[in-house]
Amino acid sequence: MNNLQKNTGLRHFLQFKDFDRAEHEYLLARAADIKAKFKRYERYQPLADRTLAMIFEKASTRTRVSFEAGMYQMGGVVVNLTSGDSQLGRAEPIEDTARVISRMVDIVMIRTYEQTKLERFASYSRVPVINGLTNEFHPCQIMADIFTFIEQRGSITGKTVAWVGDGNNMANTWLQAAEILDFKLHVSTPRGYEVNSSVVGLQGKDHFSVFQDPIEACKDADLVTTDVWTSMGYEAENDQRRAAFANWCVDTKMMRVAKPDALFMHCLPAHRGEEVSAEVIDGPQSVVWDEAENRMHVQKALLEYLLLGKIS
Amino acid sequence: MNNLQKNTGLRHFLQFKDFDRAEHEYLLARAADIKAKFKRYERYQPLADRTLAMIFEKASTRTRVSFEAGMYQMGGVVVNLTSGDSQLGRAEPIEDTARVISRMVDIVMIRTYEQTKLERFASYSRVPVINGLTNEFHPCQIMADIFTFIEQRGSITGKTVAWVGDGNNMANTWLQAAEILDFKLHVSTPRGYEVNSSVVGLQGKDHFSVFQDPIEACKDADLVTTDVWTSMGYEAENDQRRAAFANWCVDTKMMRVAKPDALFMHCLPAHRGEEVSAEVIDGPQSVVWDEAENRMHVQKALLEYLLLGKIS
Amino acid sequence: MNNLQKNTGLRHFLQFKDFDRAEHEYLLARAADIKAKFKRYERYQPLADRTLAMIFEKASTRTRVSFEAGMYQMGGVVVNLTSGDSQLGRAEPIEDTARVISRMVDIVMIRTYEQTKLERFASYSRVPVINGLTNEFHPCQIMADIFTFIEQRGSITGKTVAWVGDGNNMANTWLQAAEILDFKLHVSTPRGYEVNSSVVGLQGKDHFSVFQDPIEACKDADLVTTDVWTSMGYEAENDQRRAAFANWCVDTKMMRVAKPDALFMHCLPAHRGEEVSAEVIDGPQSVVWDEAENRMHVQKALLEYLLLGKIS
Repeated sequence: MNNLQKNTGLRHFLQFKDFDRAEHEYLLARAADIKAKFKRYERYQPLADRTLAMIFEKASTRTRVSFEAGMYQMGGVVVNLTSGDSQLGRAEPIEDTARVISRMVDIVMIRTYEQTKLERFASYSRVPVINGLTNEFHPCQIMADIFTFIEQRGSITGKTVAWVGDGNNMANTWLQAAEILDFKLHVSTPRGYEVNSSVVGLQGKDHFSVFQDPIEACKDADLVTTDVWTSMGYEAENDQRRAAFANWCVDTKMMRVAKPDALFMHCLPAHRGEEVSAEVIDGPQSVVWDEAENRMHVQKALLEYLLLGKIS
Repeated sequence: MNNLQKNTGLRHFLQFKDFDRAEHEYLLARAADIKAKFKRYERYQPLADRTLAMIFEKASTRTRVSFEAGMYQMGGVVVNLTSGDSQLGRAEPIEDTARVISRMVDIVMIRTYEQTKLERFASYSRVPVINGLTNEFHPCQIMADIFTFIEQRGSITGKTVAWVGDGNNMANTWLQAAEILDFKLHVSTPRGYEVNSSVVGLQGKDHFSVFQDPIEACKDADLVTTDVWTSMGYEAENDQRRAAFANWCVDTKMMRVAKPDALFMHCLPAHRGEEVSAEVIDGPQSVVWDEAENRMHVQKALLEYLLLGKIS
Repeated sequence: MNNLQKNTGLRHFLQFKDFDRAEHEYLLARAADIKAKFKRYERYQPLADRTLAMIFEKASTRTRVSFEAGMYQMGGVVVNLTSGDSQLGRAEPIEDTARVISRMVDIVMIRTYEQTKLERFASYSRVPVINGLTNEFHPCQIMADIFTFIEQRGSITGKTVAWVGDGNNMANTWLQAAEILDFKLHVSTPRGYEVNSSVVGLQGKDHFSVFQDPIEACKDADLVTTDVWTSMGYEAENDQRRAAFANWCVDTKMMRVAKPDALFMHCLPAHRGEEVSAEVIDGPQSVVWDEAENRMHVQKALLEYLLLGKIS
């Protein structure tokens, strides 16, 4: 049906662990090459004639722009379906939508709620499907974060990443990444917001330590990272979360116990004075704007890989 | 103003009968060529530098994706105006919108309610206008259905098509097609949902037979086809329609009286257990996924014809 | 970050007076060249590989289509963010949105409410920002209007433009244009809807005369122009405005006191029988459809200039 199947077999990227270590290392290296081309204004359009369909059940500026501009830079085009146009599973079974859309486009990105919706779509799709964010996982963001770390500090293997805050899709994905790429993850969440490790689905806990006190989690970390207290879809719990998360604000006190050259990351949008202080996010250790830009570059590598396979 | 006028004179596709038999046969043959190029990964971009504006007053996944991806495959681009951006006739007279938009783009597709809105737009447009669905007609879908029939079974001339269900825009368009392409249409609708043949506007009734009993309509049919009981815009009548349409479900009993090699089609989305049983739509006689994909290919032929004229 | 900075230094177009006379004259001449290429079907795609992000906090058909089709004609692509996707300043500070989006695209157009929002975005953007309409200014429309005048009548220097109606963003922008391009502006607004010249921010009043009576303002004018009585965002004042503006309808009586070859312009959508009579807008002096098309051509010149600098 499409060149992907001809060249590489049909692959999806629904969770970080859908790729093994070698594949992730290939993608990170490839993203660096693709970013370098972009920075020196070298036109590179291997996806000319390819169409990406994006299905958004949650609105998103960053995901919209990073995938859409990225696809255009690679020479491809984008069909953007927001929930107004197409709510998965409402007008027809998800499986029917998958069969129809995957007859017409070359690759699909979905931002939805339940991971199971994404999986049902993928199992009936003739073309690759990318997780653009679910309640459970956010693998493109973690690819971007790891790429940004490597860009600034070199290999992440053996390093320590501190996750401070909600045990959410970002935390789950960091757990998968820690096991696959062999680094340590310190997680500190408020009581009641722990990571549900059954979702993550990996064997060992060697790469994962839990801390009651977020300061303890940050000790000697190479990277401190967090997310909003209330992610999209959880707005009803907002007041309760504000109380529970009060001590999980990444401020200079936390950054001071991390390594002196520790980085700060945040997938944005950020609420200064809540999950991060202005001093930290707007300070010298913060790499959040590079991190945002790098979403686009790692996703270009991902699109290229899923559509064309490895570029030798 | 555009190459169309230079090459071929300004033409619209507002009803199936806007093209004569020779033109429809040309378009069906052309769609087969264009689809074949797509299937062998041959790049074919005759519409580079051309822009399609799509105006949606009704949301649509299939029409969005089939026109947009189709236009991109032909090398063109798309401006997508949903009703949030532009409700025809609200902020200004439709005639003004037609004059402005048709100064800026090369071709326009409209999905709206009344056929008269589409006609008013077309009469003030400098560029070709395509009916992407109205209350009265759905000519692109019937082109796709006939293309799919021919692809599977050869010529439709002299064959019998059974329409089971609502006497709606699909039924109206099948009537026009039966007369133009010379096949027989059996129609069975519940009482009160009959085809309004004054809308269809053709002379003879030679190609059109009405049956009270849907089983009778399906007898010896080469193709059995239906649509949802309640189309978009008629949701208020939903309960009443569910009662009236209860016997108009295409199930194995109906398919058994049709020819042994009869096909089943549905323009989707489908409601299994209402207008069609799961056994039929998911069974071996159903060609609904090919039919959905073929929307894209026949529309590519249509865009090419309206913009460039016949390709010799 | 992008070729603009490499070639020309970062420039924005937030107000008409952001460019000096020589730059405006260059842009008007350039727009004529670019339009001529379009009319003779000469492909001209200097912006291949460039992406425009459009941020709409107010819906718009004309601005959407003119920027989007214009960018496509120049070979570029567009990411269209409507307020559903991205409301400036809601989910995160505008400054953060500016930093993120301007990492991913080459140029940004914003249609918003307060001019200050636009300015805050621009001051944190790495790429050029264009005013696609604010409460205070509408510089792209005035560029199109002046281009249309010149196309029909030659130089606007020394000519008289009569603005009849609301002292709004269009009136403010005409004031800046009159001073920069050295023509006379006659303004007649109802009491309470005067131009707030502190917003306009120019020194002299040599180019600007105020008239109580709209008929007086139109005397010997080379161009009579107006806008709807109630612009978007002011709908709550509708009844009050209808009463106040009753005498500010551009009709044949007003056109008769203007020069015999005076033109009529309107940025559309128009309400016949309110701010303009049908006889005038649909009559021989009206150039509103050319004016609408010319939005696209002047904006192509603007995009080219902001991204590539002067084309020698």
